[in-house]
Amino acid sequence: MDNFSFYAPTYFQFGKDSEYMAGPLVKRFGGTKVLIHYGGGSVVRSGLLDRVKESLTKEGIAYVELGGVKPNPRSGLVYEGIDLCRKENVDFILAVGGGSTIDSSKAIAAGTVCDGDFWDFYEGKPVTKALPVGTVLTIAAAGSEGSPDSVITKEEGMLKRGASGEAYRPKFSILNPALTMTLPPYQTACGITDIMAHLYERYLTNSKDVEVTDRLIEALLLTMRNEGPKVIANPEDYEARANIMWAGMVAHNNICGVGRSQDWLSHGIEHELSAKYDCAHGAGLAVTMPAVFTYNLKHDIMRFAKAAVRVWGCEMDFDNPERTAKAGIEALKTYLHSIGMPLNFKELGAKEEDIEQMAYTACYGDGSGSGKMYGFTVLEQSDVEAIYRLML
Amino acid sequence: MDNFSFYAPTYFQFGKDSEYMAGPLVKRFGGTKVLIHYGGGSVVRSGLLDRVKESLTKEGIAYVELGGVKPNPRSGLVYEGIDLCRKENVDFILAVGGGSTIDSSKAIAAGTVCDGDFWDFYEGKPVTKALPVGTVLTIAAAGSEGSPDSVITKEEGMLKRGASGEAYRPKFSILNPALTMTLPPYQTACGITDIMAHLYERYLTNSKDVEVTDRLIEALLLTMRNEGPKVIANPEDYEARANIMWAGMVAHNNICGVGRSQDWLSHGIEHELSAKYDCAHGAGLAVTMPAVFTYNLKHDIMRFAKAAVRVWGCEMDFDNPERTAKAGIEALKTYLHSIGMPLNFKELGAKEEDIEQMAYTACYGDGSGSGKMYGFTVLEQSDVEAIYRLML
Repeated sequence: MDNFSFYAPTYFQFGKDSEYMAGPLVKRFGGTKVLIHYGGGSVVRSGLLDRVKESLTKEGIAYVELGGVKPNPRSGLVYEGIDLCRKENVDFILAVGGGSTIDSSKAIAAGTVCDGDFWDFYEGKPVTKALPVGTVLTIAAAGSEGSPDSVITKEEGMLKRGASGEAYRPKFSILNPALTMTLPPYQTACGITDIMAHLYERYLTNSKDVEVTDRLIEALLLTMRNEGPKVIANPEDYEARANIMWAGMVAHNNICGVGRSQDWLSHGIEHELSAKYDCAHGAGLAVTMPAVFTYNLKHDIMRFAKAAVRVWGCEMDFDNPERTAKAGIEALKTYLHSIGMPLNFKELGAKEEDIEQMAYTACYGDGSGSGKMYGFTVLEQSDVEAIYRLML
Repeated sequence: MDNFSFYAPTYFQFGKDSEYMAGPLVKRFGGTKVLIHYGGGSVVRSGLLDRVKESLTKEGIAYVELGGVKPNPRSGLVYEGIDLCRKENVDFILAVGGGSTIDSSKAIAAGTVCDGDFWDFYEGKPVTKALPVGTVLTIAAAGSEGSPDSVITKEEGMLKRGASGEAYRPKFSILNPALTMTLPPYQTACGITDIMAHLYERYLTNSKDVEVTDRLIEALLLTMRNEGPKVIANPEDYEARANIMWAGMVAHNNICGVGRSQDWLSHGIEHELSAKYDCAHGAGLAVTMPAVFTYNLKHDIMRFAKAAVRVWGCEMDFDNPERTAKAGIEALKTYLHSIGMPLNFKELGAKEEDIEQMAYTACYGDGSGSGKMYGFTVLEQSDVEAIYRLML
């Protein structure tokens, strides 16, 4: 196991009606003037936004609002948010929505208190300070409610990039599984896929002797395997929603990813898809993961076989572990298909002729000029092209 | 799943040589005058105490010392620590040791800043404030390095009682698995048993639909099952020590215990044993757990069968699940025996003639006068006596 530090000081309020804690929690963490940041109409229509406002007003906390966050959140709205926060002397940002809204909120939080351009953080500058952020989560997926991460897309060139830093951990997050019951099945399935990707990206490691984190990751994958189909079959299954929602947080706050190298090749390769076609991140991951795993299978057959046996219940083929390893990837594909996810370029709406350019951006677009992607394996542009071709 | 809140803002520094971070971490969390609290000579002999002091001095942080913590830490030393902290204007307590040292440190931390008697917290008064505590952990066992809990024994009547509160979560904890390599096998095994008890006490729940936490607990039990025998066979197996050390923290910071009722009957019944005979808590638990589980088996046969199958690899007997449930308890006993733990009163040095009195104290000694123990089941004195008799 590698040396590590782990610090996850987010306060979680979990359960039915927990959104009424928004006001008391903003107060507890020192907010006096709040930006409520959200996406489209659903949080308005459902009455959630009104309940949150009511809770703030009850505590005597003033607020301004900024809606309009879209999936794959854009830098344009971040700049707008920064201007608003500065003008209104906002000292706390409350994200009401899913991962996109939370990520946009984090970017605004850092941008408001920095001197230069917030985008610098997404080009590698360390995030050292930010306004405090709280969240009221409406989608179990991104894990941003407990993570130090944020992903933003810059309109110019449709660059999708991530930033990370302790200052990005939310002060509190409110998780009410009932709020996710109205999500359409497709979005629910995208969330499930994203959570599973966060687990696989940690599972695929080159570190040795990481039994405890291996087992924790497997536990969460098993949870997703069992609970996912329940919410697809019955969107109002509160208990399954609750299990998935907590799993989504634990999957990505990194308690099960410490002390080990991680992968993140699937995320990197997927980001080009959702940046180019504006598809849902989870849907892009459903297409990407099996291709990446298949391409990298021989790098560590026993690791893929372990996932196959322990997560997917495949029989171990002791004479031919590769067969078991492949069966695990097939089981993942079958699962993703069963919850309604796309499995290839066509189903996703991606185009073969874009492969070369996407592979180039994936390898060179981070500005480092290395021309390589580093993860479970090291990929060059030709490797990434080959992986995209596996998705055809 | 039940509603819950979860807040675990402890900073963890994990790995080789991490004790050199003591100074920088005390500084980060605002300490200027430290009480270094520790137990016996091993932290002195090993040079650990010197390394910690050196790290404090390097940061210009002053300190005083108080050694002498014993297993089942006593209130007498806590009072001594409180006096010392007040006299020396200590503003940060650094525990260097295992669970006993950390628990004693927490008690001193609360006692120093309270008006009345610190023991009131151990009789049920809420812990609302305490000096900040940091830890340098030397035994993987109690989980106190990440928990809001502390257990102290009052010499008068040998009352062993626990207190809990957010203010008891350490600000930081330093976990260097190498520090645990010199532990004698018996103490190592006691630690392993304590960790497994923290998991079983959460696993045995009356809450329904708690798949995610069930799976996480199973993951940690599987880790203990696999890694435990490695460190008994080879005490210097750093990697196995590391896996156990992180598992011990995750097992008890409650991330896998949220949203569900918990048991804690084994701990309550064991506390009488270690208070009376001053035996190691882990050894007492090894004797207690199988007896409690056997007594409570019929309360939820399928839950015990689940642990048997998922943790111990027992075959499910679909015609007679009780047989599987019992096989799981037998597997636990076999495991505990294999790592050198006692399994009955005789091996522990406990006496049959004390049973009635211990059962009485367990049921009435908490001052509530209810005469009952509440957990996975509700026990009366006669039940507790019957459980002790199962340990003969």
